[in-house]
Amino acid sequence: MSVEQDTANHSQLLAKVRGPQDVKRMSAEQLELLAAEIRDFLIAKVSRTGGHIGPNLGVVELTLAMHRVFDSPRDRLLFDTGHQAYVHKILTGRQAGFDKLRQRGGLSGYPSQAESEHDLIENSHASTALSYADGLAKAYALRGESRSVVAVVGDGALTGGMCWEALNNIATARNPLVIVVNDNGRSYSPTIGGLADHLSSLRLNPGYEKVLDTVKDALGSTPLVGKPMYEVLHAVKKGIKDAVAPQAMFEDLGIKYVGPVDGHDVAAVEGALRAAKNFGGPVIVHAVTRKGYGYRPAEEDEADCFHGPGAFDIATGKATAAPSVKWTHVFADELVAIADERPDVVGITAAMAEPTGIATLARKYPERVYDVGIAEQHAVTSAAGLALGGLHPVVAVYATFLNRAFDQVLLDVAMHKLPVTFVLDRAGVTGPDGPSHYGIWDMSVFGVVPGLRIAAPRDAATLREELREATAVDDGPTLLRFPTGAVAGDLPAVRRVGTVDVLTESARTDVLLVAVGAFGHLGMEVAARVAEQGYGVTVVDPRWVRPVPTELVELAAAHRLVVTVEDGVRIGGVGDALAQAMRDADVRVPLRDLGVPADWHPHGTRAQILADLRLTAQDVARDVTGWISGLDGASVDQVRVPAGDKAAQN
Amino acid sequence: MSVEQDTANHSQLLAKVRGPQDVKRMSAEQLELLAAEIRDFLIAKVSRTGGHIGPNLGVVELTLAMHRVFDSPRDRLLFDTGHQAYVHKILTGRQAGFDKLRQRGGLSGYPSQAESEHDLIENSHASTALSYADGLAKAYALRGESRSVVAVVGDGALTGGMCWEALNNIATARNPLVIVVNDNGRSYSPTIGGLADHLSSLRLNPGYEKVLDTVKDALGSTPLVGKPMYEVLHAVKKGIKDAVAPQAMFEDLGIKYVGPVDGHDVAAVEGALRAAKNFGGPVIVHAVTRKGYGYRPAEEDEADCFHGPGAFDIATGKATAAPSVKWTHVFADELVAIADERPDVVGITAAMAEPTGIATLARKYPERVYDVGIAEQHAVTSAAGLALGGLHPVVAVYATFLNRAFDQVLLDVAMHKLPVTFVLDRAGVTGPDGPSHYGIWDMSVFGVVPGLRIAAPRDAATLREELREATAVDDGPTLLRFPTGAVAGDLPAVRRVGTVDVLTESARTDVLLVAVGAFGHLGMEVAARVAEQGYGVTVVDPRWVRPVPTELVELAAAHRLVVTVEDGVRIGGVGDALAQAMRDADVRVPLRDLGVPADWHPHGTRAQILADLRLTAQDVARDVTGWISGLDGASVDQVRVPAGDKAAQN
Repeated sequence: MSVEQDTANHSQLLAKVRGPQDVKRMSAEQLELLAAEIRDFLIAKVSRTGGHIGPNLGVVELTLAMHRVFDSPRDRLLFDTGHQAYVHKILTGRQAGFDKLRQRGGLSGYPSQAESEHDLIENSHASTALSYADGLAKAYALRGESRSVVAVVGDGALTGGMCWEALNNIATARNPLVIVVNDNGRSYSPTIGGLADHLSSLRLNPGYEKVLDTVKDALGSTPLVGKPMYEVLHAVKKGIKDAVAPQAMFEDLGIKYVGPVDGHDVAAVEGALRAAKNFGGPVIVHAVTRKGYGYRPAEEDEADCFHGPGAFDIATGKATAAPSVKWTHVFADELVAIADERPDVVGITAAMAEPTGIATLARKYPERVYDVGIAEQHAVTSAAGLALGGLHPVVAVYATFLNRAFDQVLLDVAMHKLPVTFVLDRAGVTGPDGPSHYGIWDMSVFGVVPGLRIAAPRDAATLREELREATAVDDGPTLLRFPTGAVAGDLPAVRRVGTVDVLTESARTDVLLVAVGAFGHLGMEVAARVAEQGYGVTVVDPRWVRPVPTELVELAAAHRLVVTVEDGVRIGGVGDALAQAMRDADVRVPLRDLGVPADWHPHGTRAQILADLRLTAQDVARDVTGWISGLDGASVDQVRVPAGDKAAQN
Repeated sequence: MSVEQDTANHSQLLAKVRGPQDVKRMSAEQLELLAAEIRDFLIAKVSRTGGHIGPNLGVVELTLAMHRVFDSPRDRLLFDTGHQAYVHKILTGRQAGFDKLRQRGGLSGYPSQAESEHDLIENSHASTALSYADGLAKAYALRGESRSVVAVVGDGALTGGMCWEALNNIATARNPLVIVVNDNGRSYSPTIGGLADHLSSLRLNPGYEKVLDTVKDALGSTPLVGKPMYEVLHAVKKGIKDAVAPQAMFEDLGIKYVGPVDGHDVAAVEGALRAAKNFGGPVIVHAVTRKGYGYRPAEEDEADCFHGPGAFDIATGKATAAPSVKWTHVFADELVAIADERPDVVGITAAMAEPTGIATLARKYPERVYDVGIAEQHAVTSAAGLALGGLHPVVAVYATFLNRAFDQVLLDVAMHKLPVTFVLDRAGVTGPDGPSHYGIWDMSVFGVVPGLRIAAPRDAATLREELREATAVDDGPTLLRFPTGAVAGDLPAVRRVGTVDVLTESARTDVLLVAVGAFGHLGMEVAARVAEQGYGVTVVDPRWVRPVPTELVELAAAHRLVVTVEDGVRIGGVGDALAQAMRDADVRVPLRDLGVPADWHPHGTRAQILADLRLTAQDVARDVTGWISGLDGASVDQVRVPAGDKAAQN
């Protein structure tokens, strides 16, 4: 409460900001005060809702300057990895929404067209904004519209290959377009001398303010468009290669370079942006910022916990929720145990070492973990190379991000029958990060990959077991997927049929309920509820869902109704694949497949979304009971022959 | 015959080459003769089989030098876009195979582990070799093996984002690794002066030998490792931005640069490769070559027809097969007709302007076509930008290549509900290019994308019609897909039900045959054959296969058996989606879905592969007859209740 009170008292300027025009009118002194108020506002709000606090504290002045120089929404401001758009939201009339940030019905954690005309791309995947910008600038050029296009991209996102593809094309097209490289600190240069080394060594120094002073000293306060600077800035963030592409390269490509400018000096950024705006061609503005700037726990956050934390205590920066054992932890621990025994097992991730748990392996065996940066394609194909070289790579990424390397999984790994284990964290319904972070596509999309074995562990014990099975496969790739959050208690099997675990069975063979992965617990509850209605339910966990276990088809054939329930899209999913296998085997037991509709689902908690989708024990039990009782009630004719055919028979 | 005779007479050195060791022993004079023999051999063989003649004529000396300096298979030679490996195959004991190059049971057009221990990656998609190389080099470093890794990559492939991702990681890892940039001619520099401009202007000159002389004059015959050269080479091939990344950039990244060397001078390439091999870290060797070198029709081939032609007459270079109207031509013509009426319609392709027919639009409206280079991700997301800017982009690529941009189609286009039309040429079973070129995944993989409408035209008339329907959609993306080769005659509908075309119908409603796309003709033949057995068959073309038309479900309900046949993988395919829609609608008519198994299929002609897969009218008719007669013969119990369930009932 006191925090809220404080924020209210201190937000006198912020309260007057209804839109970008209000920011344009402010004096330098007012802007400085406003920046401080925005930081207080962000900390107060995000400490209670959770969200991407660190990145947004770093772009306060940058965003203020952008809205002063450009005229949104006529000019188009594009935020790569849209989680850095909170300040933009604050300045475009959405302050009130922050009380329900990332909550169901509340403000999105990313730009959203539905929220504001100032938002255009609703993107949460990195390295895409420059490609959007290239297309927009081409469209405005062809249509003869004079509008500025501005894309903000982080230094980390520049390691993504899409940025390289876009830069080549932006340089060739030569349309007016401003690329703001938001280069946030804690970086160092592995290679080259001059200003870069100097900057970088200073960046490693906790007294970061020195960097900004040095930049100013070196360049003067007004950077010049096209100032020739051949020193190269390379950034390696936390041991990860996150290269800021050298400005010499940008210039070589035909893109003007302005910078570096102090990203926390509104006037300096404004000067650079005005110069860039007036240039009439593609320009890079290189702004040096500090992630978490102005909030000590976030600034001093070496492990990057403040990138996107849950709710936290403002004074200490510690999470307010009680810690729990997460799927990620179970995976991380078991991977280390396997690596202890198997020197050929190595880890790969794409700028996600801590969130995927690969960092645990890296702490014990640093030489056996490769973090390739935001570069999923390279993660997968370099894993193919590692496997060809005799190792067994474990590639750990979020489910939503492996989609970026589908072709590489298909051809570079699977076609070569290489032993690579993919581990997908945050699979299925995720929640607060909205539609682009849902991990619901994997079992369908990767389900077409020949020779790829897919497992969905149901609990900690099966995750450990299946990870061991996966890393023991030596003639092709495997994929394990599990959801976000805490792992529920272990759910032992009563028996195993082939690779299929029977979780509970009934003397009556009414319903075979195939509960995929973490839905095992839901399956048990459904069975109990349906049993109350007098029907026998056998609940199985197929464990390995691709290829479809033959035992699963046999079990299906021994029941009157098959119901599948999975945490992924229905089309091409586990239930669908089982239905196809049953058709092929001429097993004509009716099947109903429950899962996530292939659609865009909003942000909210995982539990809320599952309830919205009727994927609760109560709803599924009601469905199952309805279907099995319907079979009893239906005449043989109705079951076998649809209405339309009767005419032909009569 | 006379060509064969000639080749035999002139192949005295080549006949003695059984493996790389034979090349290592040769003198400079012998190597020059051998190179000439290899060219004669390639021209003689490929003129009869078809194949990637141009790229391979360009790498004769390069490949000879590689096999002299490195010790394959201990050292690993990786060919990006493997179609440039013919010379490598010739030198590694596979000369005899060239009589059946790319034919069923014959030599693959790409590297193949099954063919030789000298082949490792069987890759046909560009820009992947550097990632493989990074992984291999890391594996050898970790395992303490001292083996060289050499990757050959074309200048065009360097525009692919994966190369950028790989270069960042290769530079960071600092393992020994040789990257040979095969920079073939006909390029020019749009931007920068110095040697680059000089080289480039000469490259535009038909007298290309001058270039090589100039390179030699400028550099001397022995290039030095790490020679400082800040001039920038930019290559734009045929109006496409195909940048050779500037050597200054490579050096900045920490990768040594050697070159440029004359790629047609074995000694010069050898010198550069030896220097690179001994360096002990990552090295780029920049070799300037000429595509089609030594065969005038290929050298003078401005339209790049000799990249991978069919059989041709050696004297004239003209194709020996009679020209036919191809799907590509129909698309290209109709797109121009639409663009004539619609100034908002623009074209995008990824280094495939001629093969996809987009070049036809570019010739009429050059300012309305964007060729982004080998960069499918950027093609898709810049299309999203174009659409956000008020245009309607038509993205034309091969079906196999859109897989590289799945995430961009899903999130950047579809999630934003943007009007982008994707046109997939070479969809379905392709043939001679082997498993990695099959376009069989699209309907399943892109079938999960919410709001994406997918059409599979059956003939020229429906391609024209559906392209117009697709470009008229303004609230989301569409995808059209059609196969390779000549388009058969038009197949008119007898009536249309909703969006579904009924191609033929019977008074008896035994079988609904859903023939997808070009399988319409097959469907008609099947219907005729099954009718001879006394069963009535209705053949429909759904036209738009996603979302599943409700009329299709209604038609299904009015028949006793539904059979689907499609030119794509079965899981998640059109038949599978229809089965799911029927389950959801409680339509219990048995369905059988025919299509392509999700597996790796060999090279051969499309007709041969379809026959292997039993996707001929004869085979399908036999299946359909068997299934429908089986339904008649089966007791009601058998149809409805599977064997396993009887115990429960008794």
